[in-house]
Amino acid sequence: MNKINIGLLGYGIVGSGVIKMLGSRRAYFREKYGVVFEVKAICDLRFKDKRPLIPGMKTRLTTDASEIIQAEDIDVVVELIGGLHPAKEFVEAALDQGKHVITANKALIAHFGQALFERAQKNQRSIYFETSVLAGVPVIRPISEGLAGNTFNAIYGIVNGTCNFILSEMTRNHLSFADALQLAQKNGFAEADPTLDISGGDSAHKLAVLTALAFGKFLPVKQIYTEGITDISYDDIDHAESLGLVIKLLTIAKKSGGDLEARVHPTLIPKDHPLALINGVYNAVYLDADPLGKVLISGEGAGQMAAASGVVSDLVNLATRSADRPLLCNLFDDDNTLKYRTIDAIESKFYIRFMAMDQPGVLSKITGILGRHQIGINSVAQKAHNKAQAVPVIMLTDYTTEKSLRVALTQIRQLSVIKSKPVAIRMEKLQ
Amino acid sequence: MNKINIGLLGYGIVGSGVIKMLGSRRAYFREKYGVVFEVKAICDLRFKDKRPLIPGMKTRLTTDASEIIQAEDIDVVVELIGGLHPAKEFVEAALDQGKHVITANKALIAHFGQALFERAQKNQRSIYFETSVLAGVPVIRPISEGLAGNTFNAIYGIVNGTCNFILSEMTRNHLSFADALQLAQKNGFAEADPTLDISGGDSAHKLAVLTALAFGKFLPVKQIYTEGITDISYDDIDHAESLGLVIKLLTIAKKSGGDLEARVHPTLIPKDHPLALINGVYNAVYLDADPLGKVLISGEGAGQMAAASGVVSDLVNLATRSADRPLLCNLFDDDNTLKYRTIDAIESKFYIRFMAMDQPGVLSKITGILGRHQIGINSVAQKAHNKAQAVPVIMLTDYTTEKSLRVALTQIRQLSVIKSKPVAIRMEKLQ
Repeated sequence: MNKINIGLLGYGIVGSGVIKMLGSRRAYFREKYGVVFEVKAICDLRFKDKRPLIPGMKTRLTTDASEIIQAEDIDVVVELIGGLHPAKEFVEAALDQGKHVITANKALIAHFGQALFERAQKNQRSIYFETSVLAGVPVIRPISEGLAGNTFNAIYGIVNGTCNFILSEMTRNHLSFADALQLAQKNGFAEADPTLDISGGDSAHKLAVLTALAFGKFLPVKQIYTEGITDISYDDIDHAESLGLVIKLLTIAKKSGGDLEARVHPTLIPKDHPLALINGVYNAVYLDADPLGKVLISGEGAGQMAAASGVVSDLVNLATRSADRPLLCNLFDDDNTLKYRTIDAIESKFYIRFMAMDQPGVLSKITGILGRHQIGINSVAQKAHNKAQAVPVIMLTDYTTEKSLRVALTQIRQLSVIKSKPVAIRMEKLQ
Repeated sequence: MNKINIGLLGYGIVGSGVIKMLGSRRAYFREKYGVVFEVKAICDLRFKDKRPLIPGMKTRLTTDASEIIQAEDIDVVVELIGGLHPAKEFVEAALDQGKHVITANKALIAHFGQALFERAQKNQRSIYFETSVLAGVPVIRPISEGLAGNTFNAIYGIVNGTCNFILSEMTRNHLSFADALQLAQKNGFAEADPTLDISGGDSAHKLAVLTALAFGKFLPVKQIYTEGITDISYDDIDHAESLGLVIKLLTIAKKSGGDLEARVHPTLIPKDHPLALINGVYNAVYLDADPLGKVLISGEGAGQMAAASGVVSDLVNLATRSADRPLLCNLFDDDNTLKYRTIDAIESKFYIRFMAMDQPGVLSKITGILGRHQIGINSVAQKAHNKAQAVPVIMLTDYTTEKSLRVALTQIRQLSVIKSKPVAIRMEKLQ
C-alpha cells in the first residue's frame, strides 16, 4: 500500500472540498489505486478564530505555514491559498524541502511558472497544476501528455465561467450587462467584487498557462492584451445574432507568420462553431494541433467539487507515478524563436457599430474614412430609421490591423453625424 | 539523452504515418523531451513483395515478427497489425520478452485487455493504447488519469467516423443511407467493405474499452447489445428533426440502479445537446463524472496522422515516465458488484413510426395495443393524408422496457391497416 502524506495550505471552499472527497472515498482510493491519502496538517489563518472539525483523520491544524512546509512527515504540499504572495514563497520553500507541490493557482503559474518548474527539477520534485485551468476538467495533462509529440497552431479558450454565464444570459434572456452580472452574483457564479473576472484578468492568467504549455513560451501577463466584457451591450449581441454570430470572451493564442499572438477580448464567432455552444458556467478549450487536428475539451470549469476533483486527480497521479522523471508539463524551455506580436500589429476582421444620424451621405462619410485607411467593408446594415435621433449602423470589415482601425474610428467619431463612441468587436474565424 | 528503440509490427497506413512523424520531428523530440526514437525494425508480411525505403534510419525490415519480439535491442513493440490473432500472441510474447507494448488495436483490448494488463504487470511492463478510441484525440488517459479519483455515472460516445459521416450527410443533405455510404466511400471515410463500421461492431469494441476504463468492468463484446445504422432512413431523420431531435450512433454505458447498461444503437438526442453537434468524421465522448460533472472531449477520431499522433503520444509518455509503476489505465480489477443489464430489461423512451392506412379508428387500434402493454404515449403526429396508401404515423412513447415494446410492435404489425414493419428508435435524455 502506497501512503501519501499531505499538507494543505488554505482551507477555503476548495480545500474543504478536497478534504470531503478524500474522506468519503478512502476505500475507493485504496482498492482502485492502492493508495492511502493521509492529511497530516492544514494551515489557514482563519483557524485563529475557528477550528473546523476534520472527521476521520488525525489532522494537525495550524496558522503557521512553516509547520507544513518544514514538516518531516509530509510528502506533498497542496497550495490553495491563491494570489501571488506568500503563495510563491511557500511553494519555493516546499520544493526546497523536498516536497512535491499541487496548486490550483493560475496566477502563480502564469507569473512564476518558469522559475518554479526549474526549482522543482533541481529538487527532483514535481509541480502539479491541473486545476489552474478549467478546474478538474482535464486540460493541462491532455495538452502536455495526451498531445505529446504534436505542435500547436492555435489554442482558443472560454476559461472564465463568470463571463461566460453573463454573456450567455445576455444572449439567451436579453439581459443588460448589469442585470446579467447581478443574476450571476445571486447564483454564486460571480464574486461580490467581480473585477478580476469581468475585466478579463483571470482569463489572461489562464491564457498565460495555456500559452506556455502549447507554445513553450511564458508571456509576462502584463504584456497580454486584455479586454473584459463590461462594455458589451445587449444591442450588439442582438445585432451579432442576426449576422449568425455569437459574442464570447475568448482567450486566443496562435501562431501567425513566425509570431505568437496572445490576447483576451470579447470575440464574435460563428454561431454554429463548437465554442459558440459552450454556454453558462461551462468552459472549453479548442486546440488546433499538428498533425492531430482540432480537439475540443469542455466541462464545468469552476465550483467547489470541480476544483476539488482536479486537486484529487493530481494527488492520484502523484501517488501512482515515480518521482524520478519530471512531468511533461514541468518541462519548459522558452522558445526564443517565437516573437510576441503586439495588439497594434494584429490583423482581424471587425464588427463595428456606429450611432449615426439618419441623414443622406452619412454612409459615404464613414466609408470614405475607412477607405482612406485601406479598411475594406464586407457588409453594412442600418438597423432602424428615425429622423430625430441617432440609429445604429452595423458594419463588418475585412481584415485590417488594429492600428488602422483605431485611427479610422477616432476620425469617424469626430463627424458631427456620429453621436457616440463607435463600438468595435473583433471577429475570429477559428481556423 | 533518453533513447527509445522501437520495433514496429505492421507497416500500413498508420505505421507509415508513425514513421513519417518520427522522422520529421527528430529535432523537436530531442529538444522538447530529451528523447531520441530509433526504429530498429519493422515487420510486415507485404515486405515479401516490396520493401519500402525508410529514410534517415537504419531500420531492419522483416516478414518475421519474432525478429522484433525477440530482438534484444528493442524496448517497445508497437502493434499496428490489428485484428485478434496473431496480434494477441505477438503482444503476449513481447510482454514476456520484457518489452513495453503500444497498440492501436481496440478489438485486442476489448477482448483480451484484462489478461494482457495482468501479464504486463507480471512482467513490470506497460500497455499503452491511447489510439484505440478516438485515435490521437486524448481519451484513454484523460479518463484514467485526468479524472482519477472520480467515479462515473455515464459515458456516451460517438466513436465511429464512418457512421457519423453517413448520418450527418443524410441529415444535412437529405441523402438516403445508400447514397451517403457511397459518398463516404468516395471520400475515403468508409472501407470498400464497410460492414464492421455500419453494423456497430467497431463502436462496440470501443465501448468495451471505455466501459472497462470508466466502470472497471470488461464486458464480453458479444454480450454488448449492438445495432448498426443500416436501417435508418432519411424519412426518420426528417421526422425526428421536426421534433427537435437528431439521430446519432451512440455508445452508451451507464449505471442504472445497481446495474450497468452498455449498448450501441442509433439514438435520438436533443438537437441542442453538445453531442448532436458532433458532425461528419468528428468523434466525441461525453462523460458524466462524480464529482466533476459533465466533460466533453471531441476531435477527428480517424485518419492516418490522427492515429499516428496517438501512437507517438504514447511513445513520448513511455519515454518520459518511469517503468516501475503500472499505468493507471492498466490497473484493472473487475467490479463484481456491477451487474450487466440485458437489453430486454432496459427502459427507454422510443420514437416509433408506423406506415398505416389513413382510416378512422387506426390510431385507436394502435394506442389500444400500446396501452395494454402499459406503454404511455407522449405525442402523436400523422405526417400526411392520402386515402389510397399508407402514411407515416409518428409516436413518442414514455419510458417502457424493450421487451414490452417489442411484444406490442409485433401485435401492431399484425393489424391489417399497418403496411410495413414499424420503425423504433431509442431516445436518450443524456442526463
